[in-house]
Amino acid sequence: MTQEISLDPRLSSDSARIGRLALCEVRLQDDARFPWLVLVPQREGISELFELAVADRAAAMEEIAQCAAALRAVTQCLKINVGALGNIVRQLHIHIVARNEGDTAWPGPVWGAGTRVPYSEMQKSELIERMRSALGMRG
Amino acid sequence: MTQEISLDPRLSSDSARIGRLALCEVRLQDDARFPWLVLVPQREGISELFELAVADRAAAMEEIAQCAAALRAVTQCLKINVGALGNIVRQLHIHIVARNEGDTAWPGPVWGAGTRVPYSEMQKSELIERMRSALGMRG
Repeated sequence: MTQEISLDPRLSSDSARIGRLALCEVRLQDDARFPWLVLVPQREGISELFELAVADRAAAMEEIAQCAAALRAVTQCLKINVGALGNIVRQLHIHIVARNEGDTAWPGPVWGAGTRVPYSEMQKSELIERMRSALGMRG
Repeated sequence: MTQEISLDPRLSSDSARIGRLALCEVRLQDDARFPWLVLVPQREGISELFELAVADRAAAMEEIAQCAAALRAVTQCLKINVGALGNIVRQLHIHIVARNEGDTAWPGPVWGAGTRVPYSEMQKSELIERMRSALGMRG
């Protein structure tokens, strides 16, 4: 099993682990309003994309693309939103969010919009399994 | 001179050209509240990062990193926000925004926050020149 770096407690409390790619841990944001992945590069002490090494930046982009395509395939969403903000949680993390016309924040961003609506345990498990399958991850 | 692809009129009306990197045109969002770059990959018909070819994705990441580091160097900001949303304008474009505690949207996202405040012509010209210099572009 791959060792993982420490995760900011605000990330761990709001999201659940889907699995691990070469660079990033992939997590599901626990918000039933929007299917929403969070990628956490497994590098300590980094808060900006440009602080990653060049090879890690390339890997990050490929994992963003892989996760975004998988999220769209699973959700059939209209648009993917990608963001690396970090104004509140400084540990580098990348949001990949499935958006649709008429979702509760449309066409604005999801960050800071309204209040998170947790999934039921069954909904969450099912979506995690579908994402693992789409990403070719073992359960 | 490098030929450029057509630019969505909403991008052209809200931002001014800084210059051209290998893949992207770099523009300054005309909003004095936040120093804010917009990168437009010069590829037709693309609205998602994962629709770019692999080599273009790597180039996009390197240009994002270069522009983000240059923006931080010029502005001495606290945090860089990077986002590719496209809910309103579908032509692929990547936002790189300099953020500081106490700016008018802090700690929320800039997208959809309040009303754009145009620069004076002098402010805009000066910031464009500083960005060109930081990016090693000719005027």
